[in-house]
Amino acid sequence: MKRFTPKLLFIGIIVSITACNNHKNQQKMTISDSTSIFPKGEKLPNEYFTGNAFLHLVLAKDKNNEFALGSVTFEPGARTHWHTHPKGQVLIITEGEGFYQVKGKPAQLLVKGSVVNIPENTEHWHGASVNNKLVHIAITNYKGDSNVVWLQPVSDQDYQEVNKTKTHE
Amino acid sequence: MKRFTPKLLFIGIIVSITACNNHKNQQKMTISDSTSIFPKGEKLPNEYFTGNAFLHLVLAKDKNNEFALGSVTFEPGARTHWHTHPKGQVLIITEGEGFYQVKGKPAQLLVKGSVVNIPENTEHWHGASVNNKLVHIAITNYKGDSNVVWLQPVSDQDYQEVNKTKTHE
Repeated sequence: MKRFTPKLLFIGIIVSITACNNHKNQQKMTISDSTSIFPKGEKLPNEYFTGNAFLHLVLAKDKNNEFALGSVTFEPGARTHWHTHPKGQVLIITEGEGFYQVKGKPAQLLVKGSVVNIPENTEHWHGASVNNKLVHIAITNYKGDSNVVWLQPVSDQDYQEVNKTKTHE
Repeated sequence: MKRFTPKLLFIGIIVSITACNNHKNQQKMTISDSTSIFPKGEKLPNEYFTGNAFLHLVLAKDKNNEFALGSVTFEPGARTHWHTHPKGQVLIITEGEGFYQVKGKPAQLLVKGSVVNIPENTEHWHGASVNNKLVHIAITNYKGDSNVVWLQPVSDQDYQEVNKTKTHE
């Protein structure tokens, strides 16, 4: 078996350090791309949300845009109450993992790039999984002055049931 | 000065390798977050776009959503022609760097998290900087069946002028 000389070991260390530095550089470049698109915003009231959910309002309804545009961040375990939208809502998942469930139907797993086109007057909830945060852009259409009707909380039992079969870890 | 023994060098190499592995793990976690939200999509025609621009159509206009929703990727140097929207458009920048310019006004630098609420019937262009790609979500409102009116290309001279004062490196 070949014996390592101190010289060879020294070369080995230099190669290791160079490789490390390359990793550091790549990591630095990547981190600058992995920040969230929007700030977390303001905490949403537990009157309508379970756990810690936050809204960054991007644009309010105006004369051209007949919708409110916002970014919603759900910490792990956080979710909306059951609710409906009189003229529907579009969700674009930008980070994390979570669920969308229409009353009486199986939940749909949401990941980055998922898009949900929520129909009008359809009882549903959305939120993070128990282990991961979820961030989505929401485009919420208005019917007159109304864009949401809030209902009862999603029970812990219903939420845990959905998470049992679906979360990634 | 203390002399390094082969044993110390061996320990040094192990420490280096462990540090490298930690960087690799961090890098892997970060990379999984830094992928684009949507695929690049299909190349947009050079009849209306200069350079290589791509559209991933997310949702077409439907009975609730009175807009088209898409993700547009501009490679470095690519931009729209001058154009107007009869009922405006909202841009959400999700990656990269670029510009938005209304005819006769200074250009606005666009970075991740920038939002542009483009008014109706306002001549403008948007696109990547000369050195970086730009990716944005576009919410394009309809007036009847129309959502865009295309005009002349942005000249190389006008484009270079904007880039001179504004690009990041």
